[in-house]
Amino acid sequence: MYDIAIIGAGPAGLSAALNAYARKKKVVVIGRAPETSSIYKAENINNHLGYINVTGKVMTESFVDHIKTTDVELMPGRVQNVQPFGESFMLNVDNNIVEASTVILATGVTKKSTITDENFYVGKGLSYCATCDGMFYKGRDVVLYAEIEEALEDIKFLSEICNSVTVVHTFDIENKIDGVTYIRDRVNSIIGLNKVEGVRLIKSGQKISCDGLFIVKASISASTLLDGIETDSGLVVVNREMKTNIKGVFACGDIIGSPYQVSKAIGEGQVAGLSAVRYLDAN
Amino acid sequence: MYDIAIIGAGPAGLSAALNAYARKKKVVVIGRAPETSSIYKAENINNHLGYINVTGKVMTESFVDHIKTTDVELMPGRVQNVQPFGESFMLNVDNNIVEASTVILATGVTKKSTITDENFYVGKGLSYCATCDGMFYKGRDVVLYAEIEEALEDIKFLSEICNSVTVVHTFDIENKIDGVTYIRDRVNSIIGLNKVEGVRLIKSGQKISCDGLFIVKASISASTLLDGIETDSGLVVVNREMKTNIKGVFACGDIIGSPYQVSKAIGEGQVAGLSAVRYLDAN
Repeated sequence: MYDIAIIGAGPAGLSAALNAYARKKKVVVIGRAPETSSIYKAENINNHLGYINVTGKVMTESFVDHIKTTDVELMPGRVQNVQPFGESFMLNVDNNIVEASTVILATGVTKKSTITDENFYVGKGLSYCATCDGMFYKGRDVVLYAEIEEALEDIKFLSEICNSVTVVHTFDIENKIDGVTYIRDRVNSIIGLNKVEGVRLIKSGQKISCDGLFIVKASISASTLLDGIETDSGLVVVNREMKTNIKGVFACGDIIGSPYQVSKAIGEGQVAGLSAVRYLDAN
Repeated sequence: MYDIAIIGAGPAGLSAALNAYARKKKVVVIGRAPETSSIYKAENINNHLGYINVTGKVMTESFVDHIKTTDVELMPGRVQNVQPFGESFMLNVDNNIVEASTVILATGVTKKSTITDENFYVGKGLSYCATCDGMFYKGRDVVLYAEIEEALEDIKFLSEICNSVTVVHTFDIENKIDGVTYIRDRVNSIIGLNKVEGVRLIKSGQKISCDGLFIVKASISASTLLDGIETDSGLVVVNREMKTNIKGVFACGDIIGSPYQVSKAIGEGQVAGLSAVRYLDAN
């Protein structure tokens, strides 16, 4: 049981963690490895005060090094879902359950667009985690929509249990698995009246029938992650203290809006971390 | 003529400057030397991501070093007043005029409280700058209320031209000037129906008659600085883009509210800087 579970290991999430740790809270940061972030790959950053013309790698490493001096737990993984559970929250992290009194959303913004009606199909043939839900589709036909490299593990798992696996991918994949169909394209829409029956692709217009659809992307939209959270044009709505409309849930960084910059993310992370601490101390 | 005049050389002001400079704007930062700030004197800071257990000196110097790699102008001095002037603003900096298209307020928060009705007496016997307004009190009796060391220069100037100078000071003053009266206390209130006629002190309750009152403190309240700016409990009201109610005027850092922390200040500075750039590009 943690005091604070922070979803997202970018500058906002790490800053929130650092500030909550400084106030003696038990903190876990759940997220993809910082090395996979777009900041990490930046060739030159010169608009974050105190970091003169650094690479994204140098900057990211200085952030992670700082967190490693603390007792903050860094948990690699993707959060599939957050459920309120009495006075606390249960997080599904690749099918493991993490419990925390408060949650800070710092997942960033997916530059790739969410598919129309994506939310509707969650649990109706659509999943974000093959190792979690793959077994439901044993011997059946699935499409995996891959936006990030972590998808390779999911593809391998599905290829071992499903009848057919079609991978629609947005980036180059080198090591292809025999028997799997690979299409370099994007998913335009999901087909199916009450559940997933197939997908339609953007470039080719091609339709692919399937029983299950897996989407593996950098961040799941907040409203998919946490039922009932207030959003506006996909951005989580917060007040000055980074509180969302759900008691005990805070948000910071790109997920609450532009500019999508490091200083802003770190500043908001600090505010969110301290607000969560204040909430914990009052409850 | 500058694109942006930033008042305050703390983390918020410098971050705003850096980000505006990155977008090719002509920027001046007007403020007290960073060495006089309370951050500079901090023995240990460990809650700003990437700065592991640093002194305030090390952190401040890294910020200033960054700005010195740019063409941002650092202008020492205290801004007495900001006046709208057509489509731009005129700033009175120790009686020199600086003109800019936009203004960013980043003066921080004075921990010392503002005196009741202080605003009312500005220009009615109350001034924040002896070298600017001292000559109006030649041969007369003045009180100088000193909260910061920069006051020593003002005291020297007044001692040369006034009939009597009484200094009420909140910190130790070692090099005292002959003929000047020094009282270690705080000003409680200003006496006078329509103009300054004297002050009442807090600890001793003593009343001192005077023709003029000079207050030398780290930051003048926003509403004294800029007529008509919207404040709430002394804090400047801004929206998410750090815009104030006055077109072309932005604010960031401690002046807009707590937590009074470095990460938050730098994040808000970035947002204010980028918002000012957007405003300039649209007008």
